[in-house]
Amino acid sequence: MIEEKLLTEYARLVVNTGVNIAAGQDMIVSSPIECAELARYIAAAAYDAGARDVTISWSDERFTRLRYEKADAAVFNEFPAWRRSLYSDAAADGAAFVSIYSTDPDLLNGIPGEKLRNAERSAGAALLEYRAKLMNNENRWCVVSAPSAAWACKVFPDLSTEQALDKLWRAILSTVRVSEGKDAVKEWDKHIDFLHRAAAFMNKSSFSALHYRNGLGTDLVVGLPEGHIWAGGSEKAADGRMFAANIPSEEIYTVPDRMHVDGKVEASKPLVYNGSTIEGFGFVFKDGRVVDFHADKGRDVLDGLLKMDDGSMRLGEAALVPYDSPISKSGVLFYNTLFDENAACHLALGKAYPTCLKDGAEMDSVTLLKHGVNDSLIHEDFMIGTADLKIDGIYKDGRTVPVFRDGNFTENALAEAPVFRHGEEAPAPLILKQLNI
Amino acid sequence: MIEEKLLTEYARLVVNTGVNIAAGQDMIVSSPIECAELARYIAAAAYDAGARDVTISWSDERFTRLRYEKADAAVFNEFPAWRRSLYSDAAADGAAFVSIYSTDPDLLNGIPGEKLRNAERSAGAALLEYRAKLMNNENRWCVVSAPSAAWACKVFPDLSTEQALDKLWRAILSTVRVSEGKDAVKEWDKHIDFLHRAAAFMNKSSFSALHYRNGLGTDLVVGLPEGHIWAGGSEKAADGRMFAANIPSEEIYTVPDRMHVDGKVEASKPLVYNGSTIEGFGFVFKDGRVVDFHADKGRDVLDGLLKMDDGSMRLGEAALVPYDSPISKSGVLFYNTLFDENAACHLALGKAYPTCLKDGAEMDSVTLLKHGVNDSLIHEDFMIGTADLKIDGIYKDGRTVPVFRDGNFTENALAEAPVFRHGEEAPAPLILKQLNI
Repeated sequence: MIEEKLLTEYARLVVNTGVNIAAGQDMIVSSPIECAELARYIAAAAYDAGARDVTISWSDERFTRLRYEKADAAVFNEFPAWRRSLYSDAAADGAAFVSIYSTDPDLLNGIPGEKLRNAERSAGAALLEYRAKLMNNENRWCVVSAPSAAWACKVFPDLSTEQALDKLWRAILSTVRVSEGKDAVKEWDKHIDFLHRAAAFMNKSSFSALHYRNGLGTDLVVGLPEGHIWAGGSEKAADGRMFAANIPSEEIYTVPDRMHVDGKVEASKPLVYNGSTIEGFGFVFKDGRVVDFHADKGRDVLDGLLKMDDGSMRLGEAALVPYDSPISKSGVLFYNTLFDENAACHLALGKAYPTCLKDGAEMDSVTLLKHGVNDSLIHEDFMIGTADLKIDGIYKDGRTVPVFRDGNFTENALAEAPVFRHGEEAPAPLILKQLNI
Repeated sequence: MIEEKLLTEYARLVVNTGVNIAAGQDMIVSSPIECAELARYIAAAAYDAGARDVTISWSDERFTRLRYEKADAAVFNEFPAWRRSLYSDAAADGAAFVSIYSTDPDLLNGIPGEKLRNAERSAGAALLEYRAKLMNNENRWCVVSAPSAAWACKVFPDLSTEQALDKLWRAILSTVRVSEGKDAVKEWDKHIDFLHRAAAFMNKSSFSALHYRNGLGTDLVVGLPEGHIWAGGSEKAADGRMFAANIPSEEIYTVPDRMHVDGKVEASKPLVYNGSTIEGFGFVFKDGRVVDFHADKGRDVLDGLLKMDDGSMRLGEAALVPYDSPISKSGVLFYNTLFDENAACHLALGKAYPTCLKDGAEMDSVTLLKHGVNDSLIHEDFMIGTADLKIDGIYKDGRTVPVFRDGNFTENALAEAPVFRHGEEAPAPLILKQLNI
């Protein structure tokens, strides 16, 4: 049993720092039925913060799987009008959206890919306006997590279900900076200020490349395109109110130059891809492209991933996460993007966020490629951060400055006053998919 | 833990006997999140029976209460368009509707009546078409039950939550005739045949009155209006397919003559009204109206109930339930209409079902009163059945025939071949409210 005051504090964090609810505003909470307790705490916190009304949109993973197994295949080409109306009407009315993300990593194993793709396509078409509003920060939104039994047992397979649930709860609360006797909202004010300082330094420095090195054997230069933008922490919504779209969030991230990545890099954590685990792997890059790779485990899976399309052999994201951040220190492999992508400094193979390039959101795909912004059907993070990671920033004139030492930002990199620049921050579109029901 | 095969059999009963799902038909299941297990079994059974798709519309009692406590009072004057669309669109498309009814009897204690009335009024207006379709049997529907923790602890207050849940599950399964090694659908075929036989006998006999007597002191003559109809068991939907709107259902019922009830009647079980328990009570009737009453406990509450309006002192329903039926034999007070109204022979104070009179559905309220069909804001069942209850049917010419002896139908009353007459059966409108979310 998680203490009531911790859940209350977590809910207050989601409502205040997360979606920053306004007096009289409506809120939609998407929640698995297994996370009902947290959903109720969040609803209560929203009402206490002045929300006019809260709607909980429930889902059930086990029914989701049952439906994929048994329903007429044609239903996955449809999307119910009432569900579209639930999301689109609320978005049009200015509601805030909270999504509780708690997924059994093995839930959809064995379900034919065509059904999944059809369902995704139908949802995409029906929820186009809703998603666009959230992507453009017209509505404030936040993705958070709570444990489910299946997920907890995947993360802690040696424990009883009850113990696993408790342990996963403790791990989540610790990563989101909710702890006994501390004001979580104030902790997040400090944390977001930290991320904004780091992003401000990186944006002001406007490096042409980063040089990564550590004892694992990583020695990699990642080029950064002209006009790249570092984003992270909280963002500003269209109405000027700040919000934090992901809780937890430990990263600042940008777009690498798809043509200028050179050297070798070793992964520091396993990668779980479509239910398979890839371990002890690394890549050699030349002119932005993977020219060699190895893996102690899951080499075939990695090979398939790299060969998905032209862009899957190039980088689409570079993200900086301090080794001292709570997820990294927990040592837990969460099998959940929201946590694992915040576990360490990472790179991603595949698609880049156009919003991480100045005016990128308005560019067509050819123009984006010309500017070094990668495209692919995939976007797969892999962790490279270690306790001894050092990163130098390389200016256009060739001078260098230490950005990371011993796995963390240098003092120099945090000296910059945070200047929040509205419109330059990427709304983390890959997480957005968790908001769909 | 309830055995998987019992849940499977219960779900099969709901899908086949309850809504009688057709190949290619859609189904909506309204379920509290606490009843997710049964909801999934019902969904699986529906798919196995050929349903095209199943939608589960979830609700959560604890959030319902939280919302009544904390939301802006104005929201209860609204009804969300998406929720209206969920029910109305599905009804228009010919879906079947299952509602899992599992209510904490004390859930809304202390919530201001105005909020509840406003919410009910808004839902009533928004769901008018949907409800009309179900009332007219245009769509097939079924209300069933599964335990929730709060409800189970109310019924078995001396047990642990886990024990109470298990005991309530066993009680429910036994009342719905689901048991190890038996085919529940076949059991219900026999049961419905039994109810149809009894109704056919009562309808053919067209008694002018019933005369109730037992050792408790009941000696009551209940007049029956010209054109009254006995209904019960399964009904025929607009498309000709049979369905059973309530599982369990043990009664056949009709409308008494509001002006012709004379004698005294003693209640055989306590009555729970708005959270208060009335015990050891009875009435004296003259010319259809209560002229005296007594109660060992809850006399004031009963007094208030009787004085609600003019119709609350007259009868609106007479229902026959064999003393040997499973709910009666269980001896459990369920605090749940679906079960308790099927516990014994009963009468109801207040509003009558117009559909229990020939052409009654088309009559205005004045015409109905003229025909002896009572009207009131209330409809309160009270149990009068005992092991020694005898009921005689009185023909127009004064002859009598035994209908009940020793608490059960006489053989004579069951000798009639069931003639199902479409359009003469009442759709039990008071249970229908359970279908709203």
